[in-house]
Amino acid sequence: MNRAPSADLAAHWGLDPEVTFLNHGSFGACPTTVLDYQGELRARLEREPVRFMARELEGLLDAARAMLAAFLGARPEDVVFVNNATSAVNAVLRHLPLETGDELLVSDQEYNACRNVVDFVARRADASVKVVRLPFPVSAPDEIVDAFAAAVGPRTRLALFDHVTSQTGLVFPAASIAAALRERGVRVLIDGAHAPGMLPLELESIGADYYTGNLHKWVCAPKGAAFLWVRRELQPEVRPAVISHGANADDSQRSRFQLEFGWTGTDDPTAWLCVPEALRFLGTLLPGGWPELMRRNRALALRGRDILAEALATAPPAPAEMIGSLAALPLPDGGEEPRSYLYVDPLQTALYRDHRIEVPVIPWPAPPKRLIRTSAQLYNTEQDYHLLAQALRRMFPR
Amino acid sequence: MNRAPSADLAAHWGLDPEVTFLNHGSFGACPTTVLDYQGELRARLEREPVRFMARELEGLLDAARAMLAAFLGARPEDVVFVNNATSAVNAVLRHLPLETGDELLVSDQEYNACRNVVDFVARRADASVKVVRLPFPVSAPDEIVDAFAAAVGPRTRLALFDHVTSQTGLVFPAASIAAALRERGVRVLIDGAHAPGMLPLELESIGADYYTGNLHKWVCAPKGAAFLWVRRELQPEVRPAVISHGANADDSQRSRFQLEFGWTGTDDPTAWLCVPEALRFLGTLLPGGWPELMRRNRALALRGRDILAEALATAPPAPAEMIGSLAALPLPDGGEEPRSYLYVDPLQTALYRDHRIEVPVIPWPAPPKRLIRTSAQLYNTEQDYHLLAQALRRMFPR
Repeated sequence: MNRAPSADLAAHWGLDPEVTFLNHGSFGACPTTVLDYQGELRARLEREPVRFMARELEGLLDAARAMLAAFLGARPEDVVFVNNATSAVNAVLRHLPLETGDELLVSDQEYNACRNVVDFVARRADASVKVVRLPFPVSAPDEIVDAFAAAVGPRTRLALFDHVTSQTGLVFPAASIAAALRERGVRVLIDGAHAPGMLPLELESIGADYYTGNLHKWVCAPKGAAFLWVRRELQPEVRPAVISHGANADDSQRSRFQLEFGWTGTDDPTAWLCVPEALRFLGTLLPGGWPELMRRNRALALRGRDILAEALATAPPAPAEMIGSLAALPLPDGGEEPRSYLYVDPLQTALYRDHRIEVPVIPWPAPPKRLIRTSAQLYNTEQDYHLLAQALRRMFPR
Repeated sequence: MNRAPSADLAAHWGLDPEVTFLNHGSFGACPTTVLDYQGELRARLEREPVRFMARELEGLLDAARAMLAAFLGARPEDVVFVNNATSAVNAVLRHLPLETGDELLVSDQEYNACRNVVDFVARRADASVKVVRLPFPVSAPDEIVDAFAAAVGPRTRLALFDHVTSQTGLVFPAASIAAALRERGVRVLIDGAHAPGMLPLELESIGADYYTGNLHKWVCAPKGAAFLWVRRELQPEVRPAVISHGANADDSQRSRFQLEFGWTGTDDPTAWLCVPEALRFLGTLLPGGWPELMRRNRALALRGRDILAEALATAPPAPAEMIGSLAALPLPDGGEEPRSYLYVDPLQTALYRDHRIEVPVIPWPAPPKRLIRTSAQLYNTEQDYHLLAQALRRMFPR
């Protein structure tokens, strides 16, 4: 009902039509066609499990990686599948050569799960973690580049940053940050959890050392699909978080990097194998394909942000050039202290319970304590933002 | 056709009826009913992704763990889900406190993937790996206990062994080995990859420090379902292979151990959530439930072993008391050297290509170079073994 103008597009997803779903960002949403394809793959697997896993899987993964790599602007040999970006960050950081006194650089907008990995490996190696304080609100992408560059010290070994931040929904100038860091001798790990499918990517030219992205978010693959790209020279150093047969397998066709990540114990490989189908299917939904999809989602995210900023009588905290398909706005002070980013905020619960609107409310360390972050995917329409604006007006009467 | 007498049972699986499938052991096989249930869970997830993942999942996992723990003879608090046994072995070994000169103990029948993990952590810590040579053929379970006990040295920190070996299909006397090792001050990690659903388990009384098992093998859950059990005192030390939000989450209801393993990045949780359904469904297929299922599978594995031993004119390499639902026999020397356990052996390919029989042929370091390992699950019948015996008689004429 509330997404009538876009009903044709929304019909491709199995989302509850009674819920205004403005949180594609957290876990994505997978179109029914892609889920059906996954069901077929799974039935094929179960028809002949050994044939599928032992004789066919490697070739199927090669084909899926080739199609993914083309979408990412990368060489297929440099890309491996992982279950999620967090596990890729573990793979890179757990095997990074670190010495006592080395420093790892993150920002105060770093995603909590990955920050935990950084803290874990730093503690283990007696290294330290430096936290760059980023401006927020931010007026220009260069402010982010400058903040990272200024934080580099003589022992800074690696910096981790999000291509699109999770809490604030900002598109960082990834190539410029990477260039500034690498020219200072710092390795660059980019967590593009939200990037593939939201932004056009050319991994070969972005200048990172390591780049990971989720495919179950904005590529709309089934849950458990993500990738890790590693600069060729560094591949021998990177191992999966789960060591398995690939550590001593011999195969003239595939690198150790490919062999190790290609098998990390028996698991369901169908989410990975659905990536080509998700890329294909999403690419057919608008006449202009993926570029048009990204353009449309971004335009809707910006329009939605304007609608909400007006309702909240607040100014957007970042320039439009730093917005993709996510947008965050500060909420008026709701009185109660937020608990933890790990638990659903009471305001988020109220929006869901009283208004059937699913949208994340995110604790923020500085006043006004909370951000609200909206997402724009093909199944969303402007009407979704009007409904949210209406609900927010009731929650925060002027 | 070839499984006519058990057609009613085989009908619960989607296995190709044209293939004689004697390899349940490698990847298991999931009944259609359980797969359908997984499809429903996945549709429910996609209907409201945030509600499912952020509001409902923890409670659903608690319920699934409780039912699994009852099946395993364990306390629910001591059990966590993982995707496979290999990842549990990584979780334990990667976080084991090890010092230079410490020793890790494995046997020459250790599963390759897990041996690779042992080698990895030993190398990183400048520890060493000692390999116990086990007798094979073996005449009594005590020979295995004695071999492990005799191998313990002053610096032996931990021993890893399989409850049911992968290559040789033997049921090891896990409790006796564990007792002999622990009384010598050695921590015990048991890889029960094949055990749950094949053997009755009472984890509380087995005496291990760590125990992992797959649930996609003999419990017939969908791929990607396994568990790790850890002795209470050691839980604070064990971290998942993928560090995520749980490292700093606060929750008075759940231990750090539960929190960390309960979320290792966005993934498809439906295989874990299908475990109760797999336990329930498999338990209804025979009037005597799980005990009768295990008894039937073991009886068929032994009967099948006799049929094949006769065809190959060989003696079974282990006493019946060391057999569960797997059984291995040596094959006559086929001339050609086996390549690697990681690739399908040419004899295995020939059996599949020429006879439509799926059964693993496993390289073995001593003459006669190869073992053949059969599995017995409810969909198998004696006829499957007769077909294999016939094929082997043709391949190895006397």
